[in-house]
Amino acid sequence: MTSPDADTDASTPVRLSRLVRGIPIAREQDVVATEEPLEIRVEGRSLAVVMRTPGHDEELTAGFLLTEGIIQDGSQIFELSVCPSRSEGQGNVADVLLSGTQVDWDSLTRHVFSGSSCGVCGKATIDSVFQKFPHVSADWQVSSDLLLSLPDKLRAAQSTFDQTGGLHASALFNLEGKLIVLREDVGRHNALDKVLGYALMSGMLPLSKCILMVSGRVSFEIMQKALAGGIPLLAAVSAPSSLAVQFAKGSKQTLVGFLRGDRMNVYAGNERVTHEG
Amino acid sequence: MTSPDADTDASTPVRLSRLVRGIPIAREQDVVATEEPLEIRVEGRSLAVVMRTPGHDEELTAGFLLTEGIIQDGSQIFELSVCPSRSEGQGNVADVLLSGTQVDWDSLTRHVFSGSSCGVCGKATIDSVFQKFPHVSADWQVSSDLLLSLPDKLRAAQSTFDQTGGLHASALFNLEGKLIVLREDVGRHNALDKVLGYALMSGMLPLSKCILMVSGRVSFEIMQKALAGGIPLLAAVSAPSSLAVQFAKGSKQTLVGFLRGDRMNVYAGNERVTHEG
Repeated sequence: MTSPDADTDASTPVRLSRLVRGIPIAREQDVVATEEPLEIRVEGRSLAVVMRTPGHDEELTAGFLLTEGIIQDGSQIFELSVCPSRSEGQGNVADVLLSGTQVDWDSLTRHVFSGSSCGVCGKATIDSVFQKFPHVSADWQVSSDLLLSLPDKLRAAQSTFDQTGGLHASALFNLEGKLIVLREDVGRHNALDKVLGYALMSGMLPLSKCILMVSGRVSFEIMQKALAGGIPLLAAVSAPSSLAVQFAKGSKQTLVGFLRGDRMNVYAGNERVTHEG
Repeated sequence: MTSPDADTDASTPVRLSRLVRGIPIAREQDVVATEEPLEIRVEGRSLAVVMRTPGHDEELTAGFLLTEGIIQDGSQIFELSVCPSRSEGQGNVADVLLSGTQVDWDSLTRHVFSGSSCGVCGKATIDSVFQKFPHVSADWQVSSDLLLSLPDKLRAAQSTFDQTGGLHASALFNLEGKLIVLREDVGRHNALDKVLGYALMSGMLPLSKCILMVSGRVSFEIMQKALAGGIPLLAAVSAPSSLAVQFAKGSKQTLVGFLRGDRMNVYAGNERVTHEG
């Protein structure tokens, strides 16, 4: 049996503030799941950029080509090379040469993250987003008690979750902790897009005095969408990825993860979270 | 505050077999989260097909345009109309006309599912996949006891989850319940692509005598990838979407959900699951 390599870069160390019942118990080091872009190129042309956890990148590339219907067996791959170099502006590119197989570029279900052809890395990806959306500026603070009250409010407002167990929720709160809007979807990106679309159509943008709470995990793309809406603080029930943490630091957003029971981890922007005692 | 509509199509009734300790307790009706494609068109051109839960589609469309960086405020939308007609080959299309804004088609981060311009619906989407990949044929059976043993094996083999709480797992088992390969990733699609890439490069395709177990939920796209690998039985810790169930029935795949403790729900292909007593 083949198990994940023990020595991959699947997790990334981060420094965070851990709060229990609102009290910071430690400024400590922990690990989060690594998220980095991998650009898949076929015959020198960029096919897709996949946000993935490094490790087994050849398999990911081959599997992607299979599930996109581009190849059916291994003999159709003439050469597959991945350059996972961490040096700036390089690496994280999988190059594929096919054997006797053509790519029908028009029928692909995936698309390219950007027209970048000089290699992708986490920093380049983040920078390209920062060029699109302004950083947040918000000098307000909320109490940890207010944040601790949000998961129960989120769950109470979720209408479909208890029935199906299959929906992600995304909700906007004001700085008093009052729910403004909640949306659910099978796709967590969609749930957030619906919330932001509501805000856009209601003339509420930028959401510089709002808190976003999501039911699941926080990836790079979720942070990017929150920034597009100008949201300074994002709280999640589950874990963030490495790129989400890196993104939040760069955009000056506050990122709270594992907000459950009487606990939370603050991964970035902890100056916006106050606590008693 | 705005809550999800009580009368949306967010959940879909399905018939399933519920097994407790391997014993079928009922063939009953339950609900799963609805998943359907929405095609977003701008100026008559297809921008993206999003797999989403119906409801608040105008918001989803507006939010999508915002987070893709195409618009910055509501005044840039001249007209937005959604036709949610359920009639065959129509509906599930959002048409947008912009006001004084151009789309930079080359810089989009999202993908178009297909070049379809005649409207999309669940059935059309599934049919287009079925044209690409053959249906499975597998006349073997596995015991419910064997299936019940898989979640513990999956968890035991996950190397990074306990550290970060942020990774999805995808694992292949043989018909004796022995783990063949397990992969983890921040993206559950990637975890599955890695497993399939491993199988492809090992000359194991089609995986007609394998069971796939995934740590999370099952969407349309997960079923599609499993079919690309020729996998007849997919078991998941969490819930399937409506389109995943519909897909499994069409492809003759077995779909088991909520496989936890001593319970499971069989949503499709229950002739492959045997039970004692």
